[in-house]
Amino acid sequence: MVTLGIIGAGRIGKVHTESIVNYVRNARIKTVADPYVSDETRDWLLKMGVGSVCGDYHEILNDPEIDAVLICSSTDTHSDISLEAIAAGKHVFCEKPIDHDLGRIKKVMEALSGSKLKYQVGFNRRHDHNFAAVKRAIDEGKVGDVHIIKITSRDPEPPSAQYAAVSGGMFLDMTIHDFDMVRYLAGCEAEEIYTQAAVLVDPEIGKAGDVDTAVITMKMASGAIAVIDNSRRAAYGYDQRAEVFGSKGMAATSNDTQSTVILSNAQGVTGEKPLYFFLERYMQSFATEVKGFVDAIENDTDTAVGAIDGLMPVLMGIAAKKSLDEHRPVKLSEIVY
Amino acid sequence: MVTLGIIGAGRIGKVHTESIVNYVRNARIKTVADPYVSDETRDWLLKMGVGSVCGDYHEILNDPEIDAVLICSSTDTHSDISLEAIAAGKHVFCEKPIDHDLGRIKKVMEALSGSKLKYQVGFNRRHDHNFAAVKRAIDEGKVGDVHIIKITSRDPEPPSAQYAAVSGGMFLDMTIHDFDMVRYLAGCEAEEIYTQAAVLVDPEIGKAGDVDTAVITMKMASGAIAVIDNSRRAAYGYDQRAEVFGSKGMAATSNDTQSTVILSNAQGVTGEKPLYFFLERYMQSFATEVKGFVDAIENDTDTAVGAIDGLMPVLMGIAAKKSLDEHRPVKLSEIVY
Amino acid sequence: MVTLGIIGAGRIGKVHTESIVNYVRNARIKTVADPYVSDETRDWLLKMGVGSVCGDYHEILNDPEIDAVLICSSTDTHSDISLEAIAAGKHVFCEKPIDHDLGRIKKVMEALSGSKLKYQVGFNRRHDHNFAAVKRAIDEGKVGDVHIIKITSRDPEPPSAQYAAVSGGMFLDMTIHDFDMVRYLAGCEAEEIYTQAAVLVDPEIGKAGDVDTAVITMKMASGAIAVIDNSRRAAYGYDQRAEVFGSKGMAATSNDTQSTVILSNAQGVTGEKPLYFFLERYMQSFATEVKGFVDAIENDTDTAVGAIDGLMPVLMGIAAKKSLDEHRPVKLSEIVY
Amino acid sequence: MVTLGIIGAGRIGKVHTESIVNYVRNARIKTVADPYVSDETRDWLLKMGVGSVCGDYHEILNDPEIDAVLICSSTDTHSDISLEAIAAGKHVFCEKPIDHDLGRIKKVMEALSGSKLKYQVGFNRRHDHNFAAVKRAIDEGKVGDVHIIKITSRDPEPPSAQYAAVSGGMFLDMTIHDFDMVRYLAGCEAEEIYTQAAVLVDPEIGKAGDVDTAVITMKMASGAIAVIDNSRRAAYGYDQRAEVFGSKGMAATSNDTQSTVILSNAQGVTGEKPLYFFLERYMQSFATEVKGFVDAIENDTDTAVGAIDGLMPVLMGIAAKKSLDEHRPVKLSEIVY
Repeated sequence: MVTLGIIGAGRIGKVHTESIVNYVRNARIKTVADPYVSDETRDWLLKMGVGSVCGDYHEILNDPEIDAVLICSSTDTHSDISLEAIAAGKHVFCEKPIDHDLGRIKKVMEALSGSKLKYQVGFNRRHDHNFAAVKRAIDEGKVGDVHIIKITSRDPEPPSAQYAAVSGGMFLDMTIHDFDMVRYLAGCEAEEIYTQAAVLVDPEIGKAGDVDTAVITMKMASGAIAVIDNSRRAAYGYDQRAEVFGSKGMAATSNDTQSTVILSNAQGVTGEKPLYFFLERYMQSFATEVKGFVDAIENDTDTAVGAIDGLMPVLMGIAAKKSLDEHRPVKLSEIVY
Repeated sequence: MVTLGIIGAGRIGKVHTESIVNYVRNARIKTVADPYVSDETRDWLLKMGVGSVCGDYHEILNDPEIDAVLICSSTDTHSDISLEAIAAGKHVFCEKPIDHDLGRIKKVMEALSGSKLKYQVGFNRRHDHNFAAVKRAIDEGKVGDVHIIKITSRDPEPPSAQYAAVSGGMFLDMTIHDFDMVRYLAGCEAEEIYTQAAVLVDPEIGKAGDVDTAVITMKMASGAIAVIDNSRRAAYGYDQRAEVFGSKGMAATSNDTQSTVILSNAQGVTGEKPLYFFLERYMQSFATEVKGFVDAIENDTDTAVGAIDGLMPVLMGIAAKKSLDEHRPVKLSEIVY
Repeated sequence: MVTLGIIGAGRIGKVHTESIVNYVRNARIKTVADPYVSDETRDWLLKMGVGSVCGDYHEILNDPEIDAVLICSSTDTHSDISLEAIAAGKHVFCEKPIDHDLGRIKKVMEALSGSKLKYQVGFNRRHDHNFAAVKRAIDEGKVGDVHIIKITSRDPEPPSAQYAAVSGGMFLDMTIHDFDMVRYLAGCEAEEIYTQAAVLVDPEIGKAGDVDTAVITMKMASGAIAVIDNSRRAAYGYDQRAEVFGSKGMAATSNDTQSTVILSNAQGVTGEKPLYFFLERYMQSFATEVKGFVDAIENDTDTAVGAIDGLMPVLMGIAAKKSLDEHRPVKLSEIVY
Repeated sequence: MVTLGIIGAGRIGKVHTESIVNYVRNARIKTVADPYVSDETRDWLLKMGVGSVCGDYHEILNDPEIDAVLICSSTDTHSDISLEAIAAGKHVFCEKPIDHDLGRIKKVMEALSGSKLKYQVGFNRRHDHNFAAVKRAIDEGKVGDVHIIKITSRDPEPPSAQYAAVSGGMFLDMTIHDFDMVRYLAGCEAEEIYTQAAVLVDPEIGKAGDVDTAVITMKMASGAIAVIDNSRRAAYGYDQRAEVFGSKGMAATSNDTQSTVILSNAQGVTGEKPLYFFLERYMQSFATEVKGFVDAIENDTDTAVGAIDGLMPVLMGIAAKKSLDEHRPVKLSEIVY
């Protein structure tokens, strides 16, 4: 039985709480820390069986009973709390991204170096039933040598321009998941990135200095070519697909829907739209990733998504932005930190 | 908060325990009763938060704190325990079927008559996301007047001939779910049934006096025609589909799969087989039905599947068997009880 | 090179003319006979390369250069002209049905007995790419022993009540194709038929003594069970599907569409409706069947659909009607002729 | 009635002959010219109703009865024969590409300038039922403003390295069709192209100086982003898809198959592979494009695919190659001619 503390009781903190209570039999949540927790959330947490709720996360770090922490606080605190938690001897599950600053991620990696502590980054989509099945098809040799990887990732609604301005930009806020997926499916690193991007969804996003539509091409170390297409707004909902093409064939996913019902009538033959909300779409993956983290602690095995997996997508996002700004392909080796 | 007792800690008793613990926030399981419970199951139940485990279900019936019971014991005990539980003033969730004897079901209905107790029968498929979506399409008028209802229901593996011999026969053991689905989707009763059936899967089932393959046609009170096709063994797994055709169009489901991945290679373009095992396929529906039962108690509303819904599919199964035996269409009004 | 005469220049006569001119390289149409041919049709026929157009089909039967005739005249003339053509030593392609009177079909069969003349009935759907692919899957053993055959056959629009009254009824006018398909896919004869039918589409059809909706169950000689569902009107167009289930798996078709385009938008994920019109849907099959007829003559092989294949679906239609009228399963052996 | 001459009796010349004879009622083929025609081909042409077969195409150009020519000879002759035919006052249907040399295409355009002659380039895929349906969805406003265009185009088998060496390279030989499709679907020109490409299928192609796998990104004049992915070899056959994403939704095609049959068995749920051979896949489009050419002559309307449409994809192919060679995005305006 692994004893957990959760730092941050916002949306994702509650998702993890619910997943752990419902699915992770070998873990218990002793403490949740959040300085701004509402009474309603506190009551809900306690009803869910959380031991206690406090304001200061140092209570968690100082509690010798707590084996591991989940860092679910705001993005700008992830690397600092990671460092503190590692110093306190806690295993860490850190929501993505570790940081937008590569140097700070490097510090976390250095702090982990030589340590036996487990560190996992919250790239949940690797644990999704569809994407994991594509990966399995590749690993079983059904695709052969991988030649082309295509990721389609489109959000149902754009963020506010204000959010866009402070989010680190689309590449670090949204594409970061797709960069991780490319690495996961390719089984190797990207060497070079070229970005074609535009503001087609919301001019306010453009005024805030960001883009909302992009096609990003990557040359992978294996020689494969990867391409991501992003939009901040798909009229039909949350579009999350992957297609991997290789010497023996192709593995491709389609979107999940609420039901398989098809309605045939005078207007056409119509199925349901993709699941709209990322929490609904990826709920299973949040449970699976946290289960894996707890199992890695219990069995002393590697986590599925380590600190290096937290670093590389940020590096890719920075390269993608540099490509857009400098209007040329950018090698990942150009990004120094 | 509704306090529950569960009678029977076999497979379905454990499924309900897990669903309640994980999803039904307004209920708690105080006691589980099973005279043959293993140590392993007892430990699991207690770890899941069940208050206590006992051998004699009368402890549950006599416990004034317990509001409602789930009858998950063997089929031959359902009606007797239902009667005892009603007499003890407990709300009842009874696994299907209430009984294979119509007279005994009638006694349960009489015991409920005038009572304010809730009674729900475990026809879980009504709560399945796919079938419920078909029903919703009908209720929203998208299909128009219903003309033809088609249910395909095929098991991945046949039961042993021994089981077939004591199960009440395929119509009461397997088709009973499909009879319920026909009533649910039609929104009315069947008036007449004709059965075409055969032994094509396993000759031992035939020797045991049962059939393993059937096409059953029904005339519904609305004038619609319904048809069920059953097989005890589909080589590709558990095949569970419905198609409702009407004046404005058709709503049809396909099977659920583990993932949406399609593999294209030299052999063809291949998707996954249907989910194989009924617990995996219908897990969500078990949680939804029990949640609904608890809500009906809390809000004092009707249950979704009442005692009459437990009676009619048995009556239909008896009529289907009579049609097969007498080689003619049989009216439901011919079945007296 | 086979020299053909076509008797009847209505819709199907023109379809065959076009198919032969375009696709059947080893045949030429010397003469088309139709007493009521319009100037426009005559011009079109001549432009298509037909040698001559006449009013009296006896010119064709008396022409020693003509090897074979296609009987595309009105249904009530099929058997008489078949007999005359056989007497004149012509090979015959006869549009379905040969006759609605079994005795008259029998006469045609007797006339053919011992003759070397080829006789083919126009059950074109056997030659359709989808249905032929299902048959091929069965023949290649991919389905295993056939247990259940399901045919869905729904028209886009009902006929007028006047037509319904003189058409021989839905079973002989529409279901006859599906009876043929059941025999084709089962590879054996039906032994018994049970009909459940209703008037749900158009009350005028009921007043004319016919039905417009039916589910027809058959016991096949092999032990397999077949079921046809028919409607005279599907709001989404022409619905033509087959599903064959057996010991090793299932082969199923879906409908053809004009394109594969799927539109995803705020309303859903929508594909095209089935091809609406039978000529559009089955155009390829008309060409293939006539090509096969000409090849059978040239190579002196059996035709794909002989006179017995013209007889049996009519017999099945009569049995289906008798089942409906007498409200009981009817054995095919009860129908004497 | 338009009188045609066909120059070149190779594969595509025969395809057009067959299409015209079978489907184009308002045209006749008077002469086919090919210096290397085999006896077998000559016989086949005459049997198809072609008036005569000659060796020298100048017979066609000098024949005052002939209104229009189809240039189906080898690629290196297209521009010269186009110029001769225009000079001879013939309407021209020219197989793609007009030339690989932009200056020579320009000469053809100059020759046409001010002329009333019709000129059509053989980009047949615009006339394909699937791609035309995507275009229709865009034109009807169903996609809204176009943001992202994705073309997948993969061949079933790579060409020989020898062919690759003389074909002008993959971009001019294969991608040229996809460049045309991008322009067609975008309704505007590309402004800039970036190529990521590799040799992953056949090292011999690399030795011949060509590539066999590519992802090509384009910035369109409208602001939309387009991306083409190419492979010279898909294990599952000929993969030809398009996806257009815009402000209101997405229109996407899937591949055509020989039948709609799905086989469900212990191995999975398997549909047919895409049609393998381009002639089989695109047969309908060849007939439609030639029909359109003849109609444009008869009705004195613009052709669907003019000389400018022959120029631009070549220009795009040259820009794509330059991008690959210089490892940077290339503006189309950089390509001077």
